[in-house]
Amino acid sequence: MILSVPLPQAYRLLNHGPVTLVGSAHGTTTNVMAAAWVMPLDFDPPKVALVIDKNTLTRALVDASGEFSLSIPGRALAGQTLRVGSFSGRERSKLAGENALETLPAEFISAPMIAGCSAWLECRVIPDHHQQQRHDLFVAEVVAARADDQAFADGRWTFLDEAFRTLHYVAGGHFFLTGEDLDMSRNG
Amino acid sequence: MILSVPLPQAYRLLNHGPVTLVGSAHGTTTNVMAAAWVMPLDFDPPKVALVIDKNTLTRALVDASGEFSLSIPGRALAGQTLRVGSFSGRERSKLAGENALETLPAEFISAPMIAGCSAWLECRVIPDHHQQQRHDLFVAEVVAARADDQAFADGRWTFLDEAFRTLHYVAGGHFFLTGEDLDMSRNG
Repeated sequence: MILSVPLPQAYRLLNHGPVTLVGSAHGTTTNVMAAAWVMPLDFDPPKVALVIDKNTLTRALVDASGEFSLSIPGRALAGQTLRVGSFSGRERSKLAGENALETLPAEFISAPMIAGCSAWLECRVIPDHHQQQRHDLFVAEVVAARADDQAFADGRWTFLDEAFRTLHYVAGGHFFLTGEDLDMSRNG
Repeated sequence: MILSVPLPQAYRLLNHGPVTLVGSAHGTTTNVMAAAWVMPLDFDPPKVALVIDKNTLTRALVDASGEFSLSIPGRALAGQTLRVGSFSGRERSKLAGENALETLPAEFISAPMIAGCSAWLECRVIPDHHQQQRHDLFVAEVVAARADDQAFADGRWTFLDEAFRTLHYVAGGHFFLTGEDLDMSRNG
């Protein structure tokens, strides 16, 4: 079941550094790309930083709309995550036709979110033309967050269903799964 | 054995989103803090983005010196990573006295690096006063990178020694270890 994540806990969805799928839309054009270069930037209101290369369709859509979604895929979507990172939405659609990813509507933004993921964040860009141009670096406020309760519940990742275990991208088609929980609060 | 990492591969040390230890120095003052909010920002020359809160001693030292180191701790240093994230270097030194972390000298910067870690990056801030003030967000160029060859070799994380397996911080003293390798390049 998909449940809301209170905004002050939204940073916990990204704090461990999982790979994400960035959803974007402008007019009738939609797209999704894989992005590992994303991190929390503030707790409350939650903010994120994200790198979006100038050459991508996502960049054009985010520049035009000022919005994007972050979907956090689990193990079951590793192949699709690699696939949507391997070609541009300008070549062919990743969200329509054969092998298309299924989408979910966001609540506050028009960018699509990817169905079957472990968690989702809806983000509105905080404009900073200089930083966006110089480093392809976007800062955005998180306006809504949700998670599948088989992955994340009561403010913590539980991965009750292994299909939702999150992914960390390295390079060359290699991911690491999020591994063993290490609770150091009990040790000291 | 500690080996150099070619600069175009340096992003691979951070791409999977591990927690880091930020080393800083100015004059005779040195410090280290834990930071999960760090990500690669470019490949070659490699750049990183890092959040450094205004209230930290690290911020004062980085503002003054324009430099910091990133040390990537493994499992064996999880307790120390939590510990140095739990109080300010203004209260007492984290690098001298009882329970102090051992340091290694960097090659190109004066900030100390933490001994026993899995990998290290030496970083020079690319000044952007506005972004630093507004979002505590620093962009820096990576000028050198090294790794322990029991953790990372030939451009890949190997974790030959489990003590070097990297950590992902969530909240409340909880880490995830970097988990199972998932090679999707063979499936596509």
